Amino acid sequence: MLKEVLLGVLTGAVALTIGILLGHFAIDKGSSVPDWVRDASRDVDESIIEKFLAELDTNQLRENLRELTKVPHMATTPGDEATVDFMLKRWQDPNTGLDSAWRENYKVYLSFPNKTSPNKVSVGKTGYLFTAREREKVYKPDQEDPEVVQPYAAYSPAGNVKGKLVYANQGKMSDYELLNRTLDLTGTIAITRYGGEGRSKKYTSFIALNAINAAKFGIVGVLVYTEPYDMNDGLVSESETYPHSWYLPPSGVERGSYNIDFGDLLTPYLAAKDDTYRIPKEDITGIPPIPAQPIGFEDAERLICELDGDDAPNEWQGSLNCTYKLGGPGFKSTSTFNNSNVHLDIYNTERLEYSANVMGIIRGSVEPDRYVIYGNHRDSWVHGAIDPSSGTAVMLEITRVLGKMVKEGKWRPRRSIIFGSWGAEEFGLIGSAEYTEEYFSKLSERTVAYINVDISVFANATLRASASPAAQSVIFTASKQVKAPGTTTTVYENWKQYSNRTSPNYGIIPNVGFLTGAGSDYAAFMHYLGITSMDISYFYDRLVNIKNTYSIPLQSKTRARIYPAYHTAYDTFDYASTYIDPGFTSHQAVARTAGNVLVRLADSLLLPFNCSDYAESLDQYLGQAVTAFEEKLAAKGISMEPLKKAVQLFRDTAAKLDRLIRDSDLAKETPLKVRQMNDQLMLLDRAFLDPLAFPEQYGFRHVIWASRSSSVPTFPGLADAVEKAESTGLKEDWDQAHKHISIVTQAIAGAAHTLDDVI
Amino acid sequence: MLKEVLLGVLTGAVALTIGILLGHFAIDKGSSVPDWVRDASRDVDESIIEKFLAELDTNQLRENLRELTKVPHMATTPGDEATVDFMLKRWQDPNTGLDSAWRENYKVYLSFPNKTSPNKVSVGKTGYLFTAREREKVYKPDQEDPEVVQPYAAYSPAGNVKGKLVYANQGKMSDYELLNRTLDLTGTIAITRYGGEGRSKKYTSFIALNAINAAKFGIVGVLVYTEPYDMNDGLVSESETYPHSWYLPPSGVERGSYNIDFGDLLTPYLAAKDDTYRIPKEDITGIPPIPAQPIGFEDAERLICELDGDDAPNEWQGSLNCTYKLGGPGFKSTSTFNNSNVHLDIYNTERLEYSANVMGIIRGSVEPDRYVIYGNHRDSWVHGAIDPSSGTAVMLEITRVLGKMVKEGKWRPRRSIIFGSWGAEEFGLIGSAEYTEEYFSKLSERTVAYINVDISVFANATLRASASPAAQSVIFTASKQVKAPGTTTTVYENWKQYSNRTSPNYGIIPNVGFLTGAGSDYAAFMHYLGITSMDISYFYDRLVNIKNTYSIPLQSKTRARIYPAYHTAYDTFDYASTYIDPGFTSHQAVARTAGNVLVRLADSLLLPFNCSDYAESLDQYLGQAVTAFEEKLAAKGISMEPLKKAVQLFRDTAAKLDRLIRDSDLAKETPLKVRQMNDQLMLLDRAFLDPLAFPEQYGFRHVIWASRSSSVPTFPGLADAVEKAESTGLKEDWDQAHKHISIVTQAIAGAAHTLDDVI
Repeated sequence: MLKEVLLGVLTGAVALTIGILLGHFAIDKGSSVPDWVRDASRDVDESIIEKFLAELDTNQLRENLRELTKVPHMATTPGDEATVDFMLKRWQDPNTGLDSAWRENYKVYLSFPNKTSPNKVSVGKTGYLFTAREREKVYKPDQEDPEVVQPYAAYSPAGNVKGKLVYANQGKMSDYELLNRTLDLTGTIAITRYGGEGRSKKYTSFIALNAINAAKFGIVGVLVYTEPYDMNDGLVSESETYPHSWYLPPSGVERGSYNIDFGDLLTPYLAAKDDTYRIPKEDITGIPPIPAQPIGFEDAERLICELDGDDAPNEWQGSLNCTYKLGGPGFKSTSTFNNSNVHLDIYNTERLEYSANVMGIIRGSVEPDRYVIYGNHRDSWVHGAIDPSSGTAVMLEITRVLGKMVKEGKWRPRRSIIFGSWGAEEFGLIGSAEYTEEYFSKLSERTVAYINVDISVFANATLRASASPAAQSVIFTASKQVKAPGTTTTVYENWKQYSNRTSPNYGIIPNVGFLTGAGSDYAAFMHYLGITSMDISYFYDRLVNIKNTYSIPLQSKTRARIYPAYHTAYDTFDYASTYIDPGFTSHQAVARTAGNVLVRLADSLLLPFNCSDYAESLDQYLGQAVTAFEEKLAAKGISMEPLKKAVQLFRDTAAKLDRLIRDSDLAKETPLKVRQMNDQLMLLDRAFLDPLAFPEQYGFRHVIWASRSSSVPTFPGLADAVEKAESTGLKEDWDQAHKHISIVTQAIAGAAHTLDDVI
Repeated sequence: MLKEVLLGVLTGAVALTIGILLGHFAIDKGSSVPDWVRDASRDVDESIIEKFLAELDTNQLRENLRELTKVPHMATTPGDEATVDFMLKRWQDPNTGLDSAWRENYKVYLSFPNKTSPNKVSVGKTGYLFTAREREKVYKPDQEDPEVVQPYAAYSPAGNVKGKLVYANQGKMSDYELLNRTLDLTGTIAITRYGGEGRSKKYTSFIALNAINAAKFGIVGVLVYTEPYDMNDGLVSESETYPHSWYLPPSGVERGSYNIDFGDLLTPYLAAKDDTYRIPKEDITGIPPIPAQPIGFEDAERLICELDGDDAPNEWQGSLNCTYKLGGPGFKSTSTFNNSNVHLDIYNTERLEYSANVMGIIRGSVEPDRYVIYGNHRDSWVHGAIDPSSGTAVMLEITRVLGKMVKEGKWRPRRSIIFGSWGAEEFGLIGSAEYTEEYFSKLSERTVAYINVDISVFANATLRASASPAAQSVIFTASKQVKAPGTTTTVYENWKQYSNRTSPNYGIIPNVGFLTGAGSDYAAFMHYLGITSMDISYFYDRLVNIKNTYSIPLQSKTRARIYPAYHTAYDTFDYASTYIDPGFTSHQAVARTAGNVLVRLADSLLLPFNCSDYAESLDQYLGQAVTAFEEKLAAKGISMEPLKKAVQLFRDTAAKLDRLIRDSDLAKETPLKVRQMNDQLMLLDRAFLDPLAFPEQYGFRHVIWASRSSSVPTFPGLADAVEKAESTGLKEDWDQAHKHISIVTQAIAGAAHTLDDVI
């Protein structure tokens, strides 16, 4: 019996154990463990990222670019409509498309040349001593397309003006003042070169300012040309330029939008819908008051090299085949142009046109009400292979791979992703600005970040990124996981070699620029909405500043202020695939880096933003401000102590939040606690907004990164106010400097409060 | 063996079963069911609310009021400091206090009379034909306190002016225009009566406008008196007024801050810290340009009844013992004042003083980063028993009961609660405004609602509430759970009898007012931050508009524009406890209603806001706008269709969110889904902000509830713009009307987008 008892006990014990194990592990506790508990605490999946990066394909990128650049696609033209259809087709593809995609129209105020009455630049009473080219020279079939728009300055007013020519360098106030010391500028025409700094859109807004400046001196018209010294590393002959190299041919003309503000000019702060109130055209500010027209350097040479007068200063000289003179005003007596006027006959017309954004989304699984936005504009000036289609090709390749993973059920991001293909960017970031106006509240409340990839590849040397400091760390993380094309190292390491700085926190790291201007569609997101934004591309090596000779096939070391075919009829698929990125490996590197950033922002349990990196940037700005201004302000009885204290408070609260994050086991935390920290990180940039800080500047509300005229790289309101006060010496202007200290102090302290313990 | 096998099998089976049961039920799955899952889905506990309501005690309320009103406590005086200490002591009490409490100082610009050189109003060259009282008559020891401030008009400039007297009714533009038809007003002094409508602070801002208007006609000084017809139901004799009834004695003078804007006048949009930039004093707008002084009706009678000239219009007449005349200008030839000037000798001085807010918090358990703010000001003009201490007494009783529950570990709210005892409200809502400026970002991001209880009991008839429409439903819910004092019904039912409207959604319901002005500290929260706000009190029966006789002890039916001792030396504990709320049962009813709202906002799983109620209000405003303006606008080619569509969209998306909420089993939902809906509800009012819509008006950013001059109860920007355009007939003014349609359309559509599916 003992044996039987033992057997029974043993059997029982074994069975009991099995039962306990079964009961504990095999039977689900039903509704007591909700499914969402695991989902809510899931972090980014590195294997998904690896797969995603591996799928991004150079051939796809090449074919995207080929398709996008078949015809010129200036905003609202038939070519633009074709790209709208193409984007929609791709984003609505059942196998590789997004959850949904649609178009959104705005009725926007655009400026075009007149097809039947082209703009004319000429010399002589009847205009036939010389006439500038109306079209760029044809080297490839692309330039023959009838849809290639005549070079022009959008928003330059129509008008027929004439006058003696003067050469005014870059048309800065100081340039005109210098001329004005020796010449009577009244009634003259100024020829100027592209370059200089604009507050706003890309590289052309300065020229609106140029014409505004010029008009103050009585100048009646402005010509703008591309100086080969600035763009071609000095090369001027046809045999050395495209199609023989990446350099700009003598007839190439850089188009541009000559306006200072961004967004639709008739509907500031209002989305440009059909019935939206539009300001009277005469109330538009920031556009040229006098006619302006861009020309190529071939034509510029004819004009500049015939000028009379004193030699221009050394820094005004360039690579054209003569010594640049200031003008008599007018031409040399020995010239065939002697005594002749330059005539500008400008026939630009403004029209309201429907411009489309194409929008596409991938719905988030856990936090659908958090958005990561990725965008680029779609419109070009001509074929726009580099600007913007290199970026659009990248965006389409990213959406193809992510779309496929979603359609196959292999992945869905934690947060929602919104893709935007913006319209009418070239005219002044219009599509993106109108979008942010229409959906202001929704986007302000929910957007985690905006990633902008406009021109994705300027050149093949190195990554370039500008960003809110909060985003530095995720860009670093992403770039460390991508191989740099043509090297054996990572994008991150390669970048660090080309462009770096010494960080107090980290030592030597790649240099991430600040988004202080309005160079592309990030402007409305960063400056108007205060959304943590970034702009990513592949770029030149700008370490050298010497005339170089090795120009073919890859232009990495150059002085060119931008890739030379920029905004001309030579920015084509042929140009891009021959000279800019033949293997499309730089496109791929950008797709991988920006795409990796995108997925991390969308999938990370905790947003990969670092507020101590923000503190480091504020500290840097504070240091610059103290060095440049503290003594001057103290002399006027204005203290910088409150600003110093605010930055210190920010540094302390950022460190505190960092510690809280580090000490938290996020996967075990309540989702509401993680959300709380994520909200603190997401809304950090929002805390720097002050809609009344810069009343004169449309859309600039971020008191740290707003555009700045002063050359001191620090808080823009303060820098500009001190600069003005110093020049006028007026008490009321020093008062404004004091006011701007208070504004930025309150913004920084206010942001610090958001990083502190939540209550 | 069979038996043994069977026994073994049986033993095994039993043991297996026991094991399975043990394994399943007895052994916790450890970390697999986090504790927070239950907490995160917990809803408001009705039994807690019942206990809380039961604990709110009339004796405590009475003793709070007695303590708060021992001495006059005008902002920044020693009496005010004493209340700071008292609040801190209560909120830091170890048994009934809050989690923490502290004071926050601002250095603010205040205006005071000069103790050694009192303001003087007199008649005759040497000033001794007649001199107005410098102090109110003493009936009780309270009026003898040396700290009783001389009646004055804060922010009236100092100055010595004299002139012939005219009577100008309420000092409205139309009043002065009427006078100006027959009289030369240059160099005159105007005597006016309190009343009329101000854009801003309480009942006095109109008088800043009065003086601003007056100056336009060359008037050099303004007197303001309290008309017994408006305040005393016509009673004028000492035997019928306090201390014999609640009516204002003949010598009582209503003090006030004569400014239009709110917040510290030298630091608009900036918190008034030590080093904050201050605008030059001469740049302050919205304060009287000429001296002004309030007087009692006893003195006013002496002046008005001696006036020469034509009879004033019927509506200008009052209860003083004569027919009111317009003035010669000046007095009757038969008067002893004949030919004499009225002299105003005003010695007000402005000073920067530290004013304190006292802040206290109860930390939230589940969503500490969500704030419900409850506040009232602490400063009075004199003893301020009703204004503001009746509200402070209520706040202290609420914090006592909640604090006790927290300290005893019986309760902790889901969300954080912030209590604010604001300073310097009487001078222009200064403490609350500075607070919102300093913590702008943090409060904007996280605040669920603001509850204001300033004067808690005006009278004993009925609840009065003004609120964002989103909050209507929670006020109803709360008021249904409270018994109305002196009745057998609920506060809700009683309220519905006194003040109701017919809602398209609900039928007859109590009427909740709109928060369109800046009458108390809700202004900065509602208008500047866009936080769903409400203002709660007990009030008169205003259904009757006849002279009544039954004045003792409870003043429920009256024509008085406010309780008669308002802003005088008679607003004392004796007055409040004898005439306003002897049993403190109305205080209790307000404490219960507002406290119930507070706990529901803090504890409800889903925020008790209703967006369809908001839609109903927008619909109502739209209807008014269409009726009043559509034809006029159409005649100018301006369409209201976009606005109609926006309201329709709002209605549709609100209904959609309502359905989503109704169809969700919130307790089982992921906390992130509930948070998503809560964020939609919390941020709804925020979506109506436009910081550029009303550039002339400090702090008004909410495009639906901003203050309005037009009498049409609809969208304020539109109403005021149409009114102006009609009066000027200028195209540019009709353009502004169009612009305001676009502004409000975009705001409403933008808000609708936030209610829609989140992606």
